[in-house]
Amino acid sequence: MSQEIPYKIYLSEDEIPTQWYNLRADMKKKPAPLINPATLKPLTAEELSVVFCKELVDQELDENTAFVDIPEEIRNFYKMYRPSPVVRAYCLEKYLDTPAEIYYKFEGNNTSGSHKLNSAIAQAYYAKKQGLKGVTTETGAGQWGTALSMASAYLGLDCKVYMVKCSYEQKPFRREVMRTYGATVTPSPSNTTEIGRKILAEFPGTTGSLGCAISEAVEVATSTEGYRYVLGSVLNQVLLHQSVIGLEAKKALDKYGIKPDMIIGCAGGGSNLGGLIAPFMREKLRGENDYRIIAVEPASCPSFTRGKYAYDFCDTGKICPLAKMYTLGSGFIPSASHAGGLRFHGMCPTLSELYDQGMMEAVAVEQTSVFEAATMFARVEGLLPAPESSHAIRVAIDEALKCKQTGEKKKILFGLTGTGYFDLVAYQKYNDGEMGDYIPTDEDIQKGWASMPKVDL
Amino acid sequence: MSQEIPYKIYLSEDEIPTQWYNLRADMKKKPAPLINPATLKPLTAEELSVVFCKELVDQELDENTAFVDIPEEIRNFYKMYRPSPVVRAYCLEKYLDTPAEIYYKFEGNNTSGSHKLNSAIAQAYYAKKQGLKGVTTETGAGQWGTALSMASAYLGLDCKVYMVKCSYEQKPFRREVMRTYGATVTPSPSNTTEIGRKILAEFPGTTGSLGCAISEAVEVATSTEGYRYVLGSVLNQVLLHQSVIGLEAKKALDKYGIKPDMIIGCAGGGSNLGGLIAPFMREKLRGENDYRIIAVEPASCPSFTRGKYAYDFCDTGKICPLAKMYTLGSGFIPSASHAGGLRFHGMCPTLSELYDQGMMEAVAVEQTSVFEAATMFARVEGLLPAPESSHAIRVAIDEALKCKQTGEKKKILFGLTGTGYFDLVAYQKYNDGEMGDYIPTDEDIQKGWASMPKVDL
Repeated sequence: MSQEIPYKIYLSEDEIPTQWYNLRADMKKKPAPLINPATLKPLTAEELSVVFCKELVDQELDENTAFVDIPEEIRNFYKMYRPSPVVRAYCLEKYLDTPAEIYYKFEGNNTSGSHKLNSAIAQAYYAKKQGLKGVTTETGAGQWGTALSMASAYLGLDCKVYMVKCSYEQKPFRREVMRTYGATVTPSPSNTTEIGRKILAEFPGTTGSLGCAISEAVEVATSTEGYRYVLGSVLNQVLLHQSVIGLEAKKALDKYGIKPDMIIGCAGGGSNLGGLIAPFMREKLRGENDYRIIAVEPASCPSFTRGKYAYDFCDTGKICPLAKMYTLGSGFIPSASHAGGLRFHGMCPTLSELYDQGMMEAVAVEQTSVFEAATMFARVEGLLPAPESSHAIRVAIDEALKCKQTGEKKKILFGLTGTGYFDLVAYQKYNDGEMGDYIPTDEDIQKGWASMPKVDL
Repeated sequence: MSQEIPYKIYLSEDEIPTQWYNLRADMKKKPAPLINPATLKPLTAEELSVVFCKELVDQELDENTAFVDIPEEIRNFYKMYRPSPVVRAYCLEKYLDTPAEIYYKFEGNNTSGSHKLNSAIAQAYYAKKQGLKGVTTETGAGQWGTALSMASAYLGLDCKVYMVKCSYEQKPFRREVMRTYGATVTPSPSNTTEIGRKILAEFPGTTGSLGCAISEAVEVATSTEGYRYVLGSVLNQVLLHQSVIGLEAKKALDKYGIKPDMIIGCAGGGSNLGGLIAPFMREKLRGENDYRIIAVEPASCPSFTRGKYAYDFCDTGKICPLAKMYTLGSGFIPSASHAGGLRFHGMCPTLSELYDQGMMEAVAVEQTSVFEAATMFARVEGLLPAPESSHAIRVAIDEALKCKQTGEKKKILFGLTGTGYFDLVAYQKYNDGEMGDYIPTDEDIQKGWASMPKVDL
């Protein structure tokens, strides 16, 4: 095709996918199941349904159905901010003077500021459908909590968010967005839960952790009539919902006959990357097409590139199921980098299995080089990217610069998961030349691994 | 037409207008000219070109050319974030249970967070074209400064922003966005200018004002080789550039055969309102069509509804030209409301003249009712609106509720100028029940008028 490619490729609203795609259906070797840490056996639907609502449990466990219908109510919600555009980064290409074509799928055009809303509305919808009163969750940086607050407000569902105390204090604006959407935001650890009170007694001055906030949110969900717990990443159900990113991206590119040579996404728990690559990985798994697929992680929390593939706890509190994944160990404490959304010691089991099968690559990048890329991108493309998303920008720029060396006209697609409007403390550090890089030593990682389960699974 | 109206009506990129529309061309009685306060005569192009770059002076003074070509470079920049969508507020309609149809033109999908970018890129472009090194400006709330920083970064132009000191300190994130885009941000008053030093000597603890920041920015522009001053509202050139909002909105609505019964926009200096209504007002001026046009202003700064139509200073420092406009007097000090973008004592002369001719209405609304509307809108439509934009939302909701009473299926179009991501201190006040309303007394306004020019013009 030779038609001119616009700056932004928008699908029409009736082109929003009518089905999500379940990556596991096309995997010959499936990801290992979640394990109950008490019984050491795969978790049953019954066990899971104490924590999650029923339809989500089914989605979590179903590894064979390839396409799952998106309920009309969810599609209508999607229409408020989707389809999201695939943007041709003409200005960046020109600035880099590269023969490469750079495209990005931009998921930041909604008030939550990221792709998290795609799964938040789905999870809230199924909770509402089950007749529940509300949902609980934890949030660190705040994107997920914001997304869930928005979805809950829309459906008239109560929403209780446990926000890591240091974030609660350092990010009062994120907290205020959630409150504006009617959510109750509690700094964690709190005295509203048994586990919170216990932690507070043990560590009086603690500023909290994601692991602790998860524990509190799960406790409230399982001990309160009419509530369930929801989660923004790692799980298969989240990857399923996020496949809308990749399905839209592929449809938009197909319209102009564009086949990307490589697909690049940042990876924390895997929700964005898993969603973005879904339809491309499908073709790769089925041997229909080949793509380079690159996960980008922070050098400060390098689960793929320096982790081991083994069963581990998903949370530091060790109350969640065991998952087989690339992990730095549930005892690993990531340094205080500014990409809060990427500070998870493990990785979603499905992506871990695909990585183990050699279906994708991974690269770790340092924080200052990420902000250098972010600033360059902002100035030429106009958009101020989130620190998480900027990991993908860094590698996209590096690949485009390689093309400049070789003269290759490669087509690069990356995921721009969100905006950096609530991350300006980080930008300020960078602007003031006060940002550092934090690379864990081998000893740090050994220490993280020491707290992994001792049983042989 | 009976085709289904989508949630968001997007034009394609080649439907971005190729020309701006100059409202004055179709006014039989033109707005009164700007007056040189020294000579008391209309300002000449020569006098203006010391402050503004040449092509912008021409645009400022040309009241006869109806359509002005948009240079291709500016259209290419527009393509990074335009066309902006016309959104059908289906969810708000349902929530209000109104037979009215509500549409809004959303200008917040860019990093500056508002429509200000439409004129910033135009003004920066002409400065660059004239071979200038840089531009200077002032900013209060920060939207305009951010927009100009983005445009300047894109064109490789130096950008010096004088930011009202209290905003500089209270809104460090806005400041940081500007710095990320390479702008120099100086708290005003500063010791970098003569007038700043004078004010600091006279009022050592002052936290600054917009009037003072304007004075500093103008002083730097006129005393530095290769610099000119640029402004985000009030001027005719700004209204010209902002006409892109209305032209796109009208084209999008026309596609679906939608003729709005009323068009509602918030009004501070008039940049958004003047842009939004431009093509509709054209038809009204030419007697081709009729529309209700409603300006919404804060009750705390009610230029239209309680001001007088007379020549006044545009700034409190009295260094700018005299303009004939609806004004509360250059000595009027608006209370510290949270809609910083609407705290201007006067109003753009063109809109003032149209209002005086009875071509539009105006209504003043109180801050707490504005935030009530903003919160309702956020919860059902997903988007967190800027306080300024929420003035228009308040009146759109009120009009939709009137339709519910009468059963009329009116079509309402309003301008959603931007997002509230940097206004969360205000939302927090509202969420905490600590927000008040501030309505000036007649004495306050008399006091403001006392500092108007004494001469008869």
